[in-house]
Amino acid sequence: MTASAASVPAVSPALSIPDFVTHWQGHRALTRRVIEAFPDDQLFTFSLGGMRPFGAQATEIHLVDAMTVTAMRTGEWPEPDWASGPTDKAGLLAAWDEVSAELEQHGPHTDPAFFNQMHALPWGEMPGWVAAIYAVDNEIHHRAQGYVYLRALGTEPPAFYER
Amino acid sequence: MTASAASVPAVSPALSIPDFVTHWQGHRALTRRVIEAFPDDQLFTFSLGGMRPFGAQATEIHLVDAMTVTAMRTGEWPEPDWASGPTDKAGLLAAWDEVSAELEQHGPHTDPAFFNQMHALPWGEMPGWVAAIYAVDNEIHHRAQGYVYLRALGTEPPAFYER
Repeated sequence: MTASAASVPAVSPALSIPDFVTHWQGHRALTRRVIEAFPDDQLFTFSLGGMRPFGAQATEIHLVDAMTVTAMRTGEWPEPDWASGPTDKAGLLAAWDEVSAELEQHGPHTDPAFFNQMHALPWGEMPGWVAAIYAVDNEIHHRAQGYVYLRALGTEPPAFYER
Repeated sequence: MTASAASVPAVSPALSIPDFVTHWQGHRALTRRVIEAFPDDQLFTFSLGGMRPFGAQATEIHLVDAMTVTAMRTGEWPEPDWASGPTDKAGLLAAWDEVSAELEQHGPHTDPAFFNQMHALPWGEMPGWVAAIYAVDNEIHHRAQGYVYLRALGTEPPAFYER
């Protein structure tokens, strides 16, 4: 067994690191289209069921994603200032693109050990793969609430299955 | 290198097969709680924004999940009769539990080759990992729409982060 083969955990992957990055980038592209689909004057104001406007949810997705992408590069999880996110569509889209570029550049080179090591997040201690997948799940979950808002506003949302 | 090690693809996993099954079962348990949280008389009737009632969405999740869990066991993707799903809460929960049991029993033993091979699904040809993750994403997406319905009905949905 070579040194290189020895450094790869002997487990059968459902998902490789580049697959995971590709998967997440597909979701990030879709979420970007959902943000864009909102009328500028409704993104941070329209709501249903007493829930937050989609702009506030998308800003939170952005902060969680940014923290996770940075952690994949550095292993550190400094808690963001949750009030620090963008507050208009142009600012949100610009911040979005910065995180996508960081994920594109550094994500595929994430240390494989990251995924099995335990990490201390602001909301608890968990393995890296749980923390990484949580960011994607959180994005899908809140974005889907944006779909309902768009339908209620009479706007056809972007197709869910297109990435 | 042993024969057993040689059979493991030399890629660094973001997610192992048992991790993937654990992840999905956590989501399935949460979706089950969302189904249960709906008042019996609203599950298949209440809707917002011209969208389908949550019962119809949950039945579709069930059929996609069942197809995917069976494919992980058999490699086959026969298209379900989309009109064949359960139409009341008790029937939906019973069908749900059957699929969870199949996933629990067979999922961890999925042939590792399944995830990288191409599969012909009713909606196109794709690698197994894309097809498998799609089922989970589809579940998160439609379930989140159920969250909005529950809030609009004045019911606090189950916590998203509990699995």
